[in-house]
Amino acid sequence: MTVDRAILMIAASESDSNLYYATRFVAPDPFIFLEVKGERLLVMSDLELDRARSQASVDRVLSYAEIDRRLRAQGAAEPGSADVVHAVLQEHGVRSLLVPGNFPYGHAARLQELGYQLETKREPFFERRAIKTADEVRWIEATQRATEAAVTAAHTALRAASPRKGVLWLEGEALTSERIKKLINVKLMELDCIAQHTIVAGGDQACDPHHEGTGPLPANRSIIFDVFPRSGQTRYFADMSRTVVRGKPSAELSRLYQAVKDAQEEAIQKIRDGADGSKTHQGICDRFESMGYRTGLVNGRMQGYFHGTGHGVGLDIHEPPRISRTGSILQEGEIVTVEPGLYYPGLGAVRIEDMVLVTRDGCRNLTNFPKTFELD
Amino acid sequence: MTVDRAILMIAASESDSNLYYATRFVAPDPFIFLEVKGERLLVMSDLELDRARSQASVDRVLSYAEIDRRLRAQGAAEPGSADVVHAVLQEHGVRSLLVPGNFPYGHAARLQELGYQLETKREPFFERRAIKTADEVRWIEATQRATEAAVTAAHTALRAASPRKGVLWLEGEALTSERIKKLINVKLMELDCIAQHTIVAGGDQACDPHHEGTGPLPANRSIIFDVFPRSGQTRYFADMSRTVVRGKPSAELSRLYQAVKDAQEEAIQKIRDGADGSKTHQGICDRFESMGYRTGLVNGRMQGYFHGTGHGVGLDIHEPPRISRTGSILQEGEIVTVEPGLYYPGLGAVRIEDMVLVTRDGCRNLTNFPKTFELD
Repeated sequence: MTVDRAILMIAASESDSNLYYATRFVAPDPFIFLEVKGERLLVMSDLELDRARSQASVDRVLSYAEIDRRLRAQGAAEPGSADVVHAVLQEHGVRSLLVPGNFPYGHAARLQELGYQLETKREPFFERRAIKTADEVRWIEATQRATEAAVTAAHTALRAASPRKGVLWLEGEALTSERIKKLINVKLMELDCIAQHTIVAGGDQACDPHHEGTGPLPANRSIIFDVFPRSGQTRYFADMSRTVVRGKPSAELSRLYQAVKDAQEEAIQKIRDGADGSKTHQGICDRFESMGYRTGLVNGRMQGYFHGTGHGVGLDIHEPPRISRTGSILQEGEIVTVEPGLYYPGLGAVRIEDMVLVTRDGCRNLTNFPKTFELD
Repeated sequence: MTVDRAILMIAASESDSNLYYATRFVAPDPFIFLEVKGERLLVMSDLELDRARSQASVDRVLSYAEIDRRLRAQGAAEPGSADVVHAVLQEHGVRSLLVPGNFPYGHAARLQELGYQLETKREPFFERRAIKTADEVRWIEATQRATEAAVTAAHTALRAASPRKGVLWLEGEALTSERIKKLINVKLMELDCIAQHTIVAGGDQACDPHHEGTGPLPANRSIIFDVFPRSGQTRYFADMSRTVVRGKPSAELSRLYQAVKDAQEEAIQKIRDGADGSKTHQGICDRFESMGYRTGLVNGRMQGYFHGTGHGVGLDIHEPPRISRTGSILQEGEIVTVEPGLYYPGLGAVRIEDMVLVTRDGCRNLTNFPKTFELD
């Protein structure tokens, strides 16, 4: 006989994708989700009650205020969310709870006081969240199309710019990272996509993979574009990186670009249902090492290849599976990025990133954007 | 003698404002923050190591990979973040940890296994986060100026529209919530502010306070604008609501508007250092009731006044203090919204929201935007 166990989440679905996935309901403040004996329940504030009842994909929506009033009438001084959960669960006789790893410790401690046993589960908390449905693939592709439109507009601006004194100029002004990032972000907003932390970083700035870029863009040196907006309508992300140069790259920089491009192709070749993400990642690391592209600290700064090869994309920009040192076995229906890069201060940085759908015997590339290094 | 206790957070500062507040460093994936015996430490992945060292306002940045390697060399099979925390704390002899209420239970359980005592603290976790510095006030005001510019552009479009057959028309098309929301969000992005969940909801849609609005905007009925972007540069939010009508409102709707406007003025009058937020909120509730504006379920739907009167604004859009049923004692330097509203399906909805800075003997309104009901 199995003991009944409820699934419990308390979070704001605006920022917690497991909760949004379970309910398809967005709210900015924390609320309670319970799955008990096959029934899916929400407990909502008065403010969200009606909207939850009409929008959330659950079986029943309870009023937090009503339960709170009942508890106070019974003598509870300051009932919190954990006490409200307890009130809902009492009639079910459930004492065992499955919660996500990020479940708030404050609520967990109170539930333990009330006699509950809590268990956590590694991500993905909902295994099926990693496997994209046809709708989800379509939504992610739509976000990707918007991303490509925005990067196309940005590259058009770079093409129109002129290299002079080591930097790019457009319409009489130095062309800055900030200007190009705004162009991308505004274009994406026009397409109902919300871009944050867009990267347009050139020269040595790009050698820090998460540097967003600032100031005039360099001529003759590589510029990394990494754009990963979320659709305002579907809430699904896309993710793409391209590296370009405006002007004349050094032979060494062109070799760096080719090395990353070839490595990415090799990695994409290996993606299929059942492939081991950690092996794919290790393959890229070995390939770079064997070509003489070393990884490690130099003058106290990381250089070479020091990030993962890929990550899942969906309701979060980084989600399972991983193609990295702590990689996963890939499964049909997952959507992952493939994004090797090389970073050498002085020389420059290259990262090339596509998003692919894992299939039974390979993958389908969801990215329709050329890999052009020299913009002219 | 006091026992040494460390402060610990493990979160992604992109979504966890306490961690961003403590470090002034944005990263999309979880990392470790520790404050031990006055020293503030980060433990970062290779990917973020250099950026953290140059950007984060902490004393020391340690390498997660290095500690992980050491633990594996010592025989640990799959060390996690909690084990890495343990490795850092061992030399300090600290066994007691203060964590935020939202600290991930998965890590908490492992730390307890390792012999740590965990305590949580109610929000605000950092009390000084509620009290805004001169810089923070300036940043929030700048976001507010952008908000006002965007709503000005939206109202200009509404003014240019013509009422016909119960809805608004502009340039030969029905003027929709979606079109106005996009106008606002794009304008804000041009001003480096990121708007999500912007509300432009008319008629009965607006009677659900978090309905974002969809379809053609009604003529002669109230339309609620609630706009609350975050600055991409400073990360500070602003928040403003206005209610307008294009065409001719009914006398009853005009009375509703005046009732909310007067109630808001009364609430703003009461704001000062030491004021009790729950009393201010109760005052508004009583005022509405005494005017005959009843609150409660009607035909299974909430109507009247069923949300809080105000909330703190800063690095989160909703943060302490609260001017609500569970209100706080206000303190000088806090920034709060004052946003009463009334919602009656059939008649319509009104919400008016300013953002004010609490001062010793009153407040300073940070909102410079007219309260015009009838746009003409």
